[in-house]
Amino acid sequence: MRGLPDGVDPAWLPDEVLRPVGERRVLVCGEGALADTVRAEVAHARVRFGGTPVRDDDPCDLLLAVTADADTGPEGFTLERTPERTTVTAATPAGLLYGYFHVVRLGEAAFTAAPPQTHRPALASRMLNHWDNVDVHLVMGQVERGYAGGSLFWREGRARGDLPRVRAYARLLAACGVNALSVNNVNVHASEARLLTDRIGDIAALAGELGAYGVRTYLSVSFAAPVLLGGLDTADPLDARVKDWWRRAVDHVYARIPDFGGFVVKADSEGQPGPFAYDRSHADGANLLADALAPHGGTVHWRAFVYDHRQDWRDRATDRARAAYDHFVPLDGQFRDNVVLQVKHGPMDFQVREPVSPVIGALPATRTAVELQATQEYTGQQRHVCALAPMWSQVLRHRPQGEGGPTVGRVVGDGGLVAVSNVGDDPYWTGHPLAQFNLYALGRLAWDPDADPDRLLGEWIELTFTPARGDAPERLRTGLRSVMAGSWATYEKYTAPLGVGFMVQPGHHYGPSVDGYEYSPWGTYHFADRDGVGVDRSRATGTGFAGQYAKPWARTYETKDTCPDELLLFFHHVPYEHVLHSGKTVIQHIYDTHFDGVAEVEAARAEWASLTGLVRPDVHARVVERYEEQLRCAREWRDQINSYFWRKSGVPDARGRRIH
Amino acid sequence: MRGLPDGVDPAWLPDEVLRPVGERRVLVCGEGALADTVRAEVAHARVRFGGTPVRDDDPCDLLLAVTADADTGPEGFTLERTPERTTVTAATPAGLLYGYFHVVRLGEAAFTAAPPQTHRPALASRMLNHWDNVDVHLVMGQVERGYAGGSLFWREGRARGDLPRVRAYARLLAACGVNALSVNNVNVHASEARLLTDRIGDIAALAGELGAYGVRTYLSVSFAAPVLLGGLDTADPLDARVKDWWRRAVDHVYARIPDFGGFVVKADSEGQPGPFAYDRSHADGANLLADALAPHGGTVHWRAFVYDHRQDWRDRATDRARAAYDHFVPLDGQFRDNVVLQVKHGPMDFQVREPVSPVIGALPATRTAVELQATQEYTGQQRHVCALAPMWSQVLRHRPQGEGGPTVGRVVGDGGLVAVSNVGDDPYWTGHPLAQFNLYALGRLAWDPDADPDRLLGEWIELTFTPARGDAPERLRTGLRSVMAGSWATYEKYTAPLGVGFMVQPGHHYGPSVDGYEYSPWGTYHFADRDGVGVDRSRATGTGFAGQYAKPWARTYETKDTCPDELLLFFHHVPYEHVLHSGKTVIQHIYDTHFDGVAEVEAARAEWASLTGLVRPDVHARVVERYEEQLRCAREWRDQINSYFWRKSGVPDARGRRIH
Repeated sequence: MRGLPDGVDPAWLPDEVLRPVGERRVLVCGEGALADTVRAEVAHARVRFGGTPVRDDDPCDLLLAVTADADTGPEGFTLERTPERTTVTAATPAGLLYGYFHVVRLGEAAFTAAPPQTHRPALASRMLNHWDNVDVHLVMGQVERGYAGGSLFWREGRARGDLPRVRAYARLLAACGVNALSVNNVNVHASEARLLTDRIGDIAALAGELGAYGVRTYLSVSFAAPVLLGGLDTADPLDARVKDWWRRAVDHVYARIPDFGGFVVKADSEGQPGPFAYDRSHADGANLLADALAPHGGTVHWRAFVYDHRQDWRDRATDRARAAYDHFVPLDGQFRDNVVLQVKHGPMDFQVREPVSPVIGALPATRTAVELQATQEYTGQQRHVCALAPMWSQVLRHRPQGEGGPTVGRVVGDGGLVAVSNVGDDPYWTGHPLAQFNLYALGRLAWDPDADPDRLLGEWIELTFTPARGDAPERLRTGLRSVMAGSWATYEKYTAPLGVGFMVQPGHHYGPSVDGYEYSPWGTYHFADRDGVGVDRSRATGTGFAGQYAKPWARTYETKDTCPDELLLFFHHVPYEHVLHSGKTVIQHIYDTHFDGVAEVEAARAEWASLTGLVRPDVHARVVERYEEQLRCAREWRDQINSYFWRKSGVPDARGRRIH
Repeated sequence: MRGLPDGVDPAWLPDEVLRPVGERRVLVCGEGALADTVRAEVAHARVRFGGTPVRDDDPCDLLLAVTADADTGPEGFTLERTPERTTVTAATPAGLLYGYFHVVRLGEAAFTAAPPQTHRPALASRMLNHWDNVDVHLVMGQVERGYAGGSLFWREGRARGDLPRVRAYARLLAACGVNALSVNNVNVHASEARLLTDRIGDIAALAGELGAYGVRTYLSVSFAAPVLLGGLDTADPLDARVKDWWRRAVDHVYARIPDFGGFVVKADSEGQPGPFAYDRSHADGANLLADALAPHGGTVHWRAFVYDHRQDWRDRATDRARAAYDHFVPLDGQFRDNVVLQVKHGPMDFQVREPVSPVIGALPATRTAVELQATQEYTGQQRHVCALAPMWSQVLRHRPQGEGGPTVGRVVGDGGLVAVSNVGDDPYWTGHPLAQFNLYALGRLAWDPDADPDRLLGEWIELTFTPARGDAPERLRTGLRSVMAGSWATYEKYTAPLGVGFMVQPGHHYGPSVDGYEYSPWGTYHFADRDGVGVDRSRATGTGFAGQYAKPWARTYETKDTCPDELLLFFHHVPYEHVLHSGKTVIQHIYDTHFDGVAEVEAARAEWASLTGLVRPDVHARVVERYEEQLRCAREWRDQINSYFWRKSGVPDARGRRIH
């Protein structure tokens, strides 16, 4: 195992967490690259902490063994803990790797007796999408919606070439359970398109590093590639030349990268090319690529994010929220087995609060993945603390068919979980050091969608803030929990209220602009006037979106009386004096939450300040600096939102606080 | 004279306008470069139209002569027209050049008998400021606020090198009266700063071409140049090393460019460095450069555009409109004679409607120039027809001291008129072919601020649309007048109402965004709430800005009763139901003007369409295309403004038209 590149934060794998393994006698049995990776990990820990090398017939404290007959599936493992020895067995080297990191997570506790347990990932595919550009995009930069410096993979048109850093990244991913990764932006520009063909060598180099930790490499491709790269006059998915071109392109990729994962495709979406240009369906489009990939075991991740981004704001009948369902549900059953339909968790676009997309669970004959956004595009851009695990957990535990039905976590079992990466070449990986938890949590939730986010937070704190010898002090634990556990709720309080969404600055999406998207072509409106606010998406009087849900949820969302407060303005247009279930009026709720949200940021900032001396000084300083900005920005949100609604409604704050 | 570069529109100097001169016998008497220019012009016309070469003692139809004893000032000329001969006499070759173009403008009429007339420019300095960047700026591009392609001077970090085009440009400028030009953006970035020193050769090359037509070259410089370029640790204007550095830098410039005009400086403004950093006044700053330039006869144009661009929107006491007056009026009398204080015509920033800046006329002991904006940043970005001469004429005829006092045109006599250029490397020079008139008109108004804008429009039409042989047909004249004469009024109707300003998309400033600047740090607010709209700038209850005017205007603007309708919301916050002098309520005025404005664009578009066949097909086609965009955008303005105020006020349109 190579060491961590200089100056790079170890995140949740500081050497100290390897001590319990490193001090012990450990034996690894198994063949193959991933078994070698485990062996190298063990050796690294031993060298670092002075354990004894172990030969095959020596006694040992920890045995990690691939055993063909283990009933652990392709990535699972069994952990047995007796007073004499802890044993991890797995049917595959991949399982052994996950078992090893499980032991690391447990720390000393891994070496206490306990009943045997088998762990298998609930989702087969646990993927990150990097929206990294090869060329620096004029507007979006090196990483689209990236808030952590440049790309780990690309710099100004070229491969960045820092393979040790990529390897270190893969190691962090394996340690939280991620097993797949796409290396370029879903918006595929000219240079990026060529990754598929003449630049496949760049991809192979990355795949080598990622594969060493069980992470399969995917590529985002342009649906127009046969035209852009192949010189054909069409990309029609039913054209024989097009099929042939893709088949040959894919064969060429697999010749270089035998464990290549497949493609991610954004088609007919926000200007990207797609099958609509040829009057073909998205099933035709996805199947074209699926057929080329199938002989090699590859998969197409086909995004369902298809909507009209040139909508007329005057047109109140069109509802962007409906688009994915309207486009894709009729296609259920038409997709190949190696197509995964990749669906954003909400019907809009990664807002701080959305209902779960009605598409999830509505295509029983289609493999579906849920797409989350780890990069904090709409949730503070890694300048604000916003720990997203509670939101994601809500999504994954949601039951699309209502009580008694399966959770989203189960529905996407054969499709997987995909998250837009929040990682860049920043020394802390994620810009804001505390945003590392979002990366960690999504891997862990993809492994176990029922995991308690609060427990994951504790797990992450123990790993990340492990001091040399001993546990993190209780004061630090409490402090970290206090600034992080409720941070999503806090963020929601000071931003767009009651599920209405957007109200962000157009383009970069940072900071408030209540009307920023109100008269835009993007389909993202709140319809506030002097009397009320919100979007009527009921069947009875609105856009009918509520009717896309299975009955229990359709019923719940249909009326103001049953709609949960936090989604009220997503589903209904109500007067400012409408009384919520909470007992407050909408307008008073807006005022109260905005004052409260800022107060909570002030408290969190103070709490963090008090932790000085308990965390590494550089980490402490960076978070201090980010809190300054978070507080400034939160105040701006509070004042703009409150002023906007005060000016519009004329209803004074019941508590007489200052509104401008 | 060199010919016009291929594919470049001749603007108001198509060869055909040279026919009356070119067919006649013309004699030019005088020495010096500008006399040679006249001689070359005459030769070009003669060659083109078959006139007879004339020697010194031949009889001639037109005599152009420099005569030392002519009482015409540095740029004037006398025109005498007898049945036998037309004579232009001037004390200087520059005067002769302007006299020549005057003859060209008159056309055949120049050769009919008339009483002698002497013409002198009312303003000594008639300058264009090019906001051209040397490097392509990440946000602002090659030309900041440029809507006519790239720069004539610079391309991607280098001199563009198309000197024939620069010469052709200088010729157009001389033909409308412009005699000075700054070649780089007032926002001076790194490469641009170096124009002053190691890149002075690039400037010299341009100055050679511009000087051939009497246009003096100016440079925008960074106040921090002694630090940026000179390696000093200060740019303090009172520091001896700084003074010395500037003196040497200026000496170096004049060694290369003997007729160099001087500097344009944007200091302590929107992030540019300035004397405030050293606790020095703007008089200290300007005088520093003035002292360096004085020995060579150079001038400093020091911009008065100094305000707090990081204002807090919550703070209603601070008023950006006050800033220039507050900063500069106390300095009156402290500036050197070769400092010109360059003041934007309005107190804000080139909006479609502003009052005249109270700074103009308030510094009797300071040379003051008025700055206009030919580039249509806020007036349709050369995609909309917006002939600005009527607005500029209003400004120039405004009398700061009230009835009986001098006009702005007189007040700036020794300071001049400066306009931000609307020209780029576009084949039509100005993107929109009809925007050429703005360039033409500003030169002509700088020569004669009392000129009737409608007469100038006629003049421009006659020159620009001269068909081969004969006058422009009456149908074309009428059509052009109909689409252009009222276009400023039309633009005002469909954009921000009643002088309130802004309401544009942030950043690029194109298209509507009513709240786009409402919660910004830029000091540009409308304060619309459910009851009313507008900014109270009265002394009695507002920011006191109205009190910066001399008494007659202070009184006029102070109360709603006396404030002109078109400026009401600039000076007052009024209820939507407030009744204007026009008899309409404010809200009904908003609705009516917005519906009317769009109807007027529709009519203009139809009128232009009907002119097909009467103008060059390429010009016709380009204007057709621009009208499509203008109409789309005007409708967007109409609908957003009307919807915004309908949602906020709840007052229905009295005429029941559709508001969204």
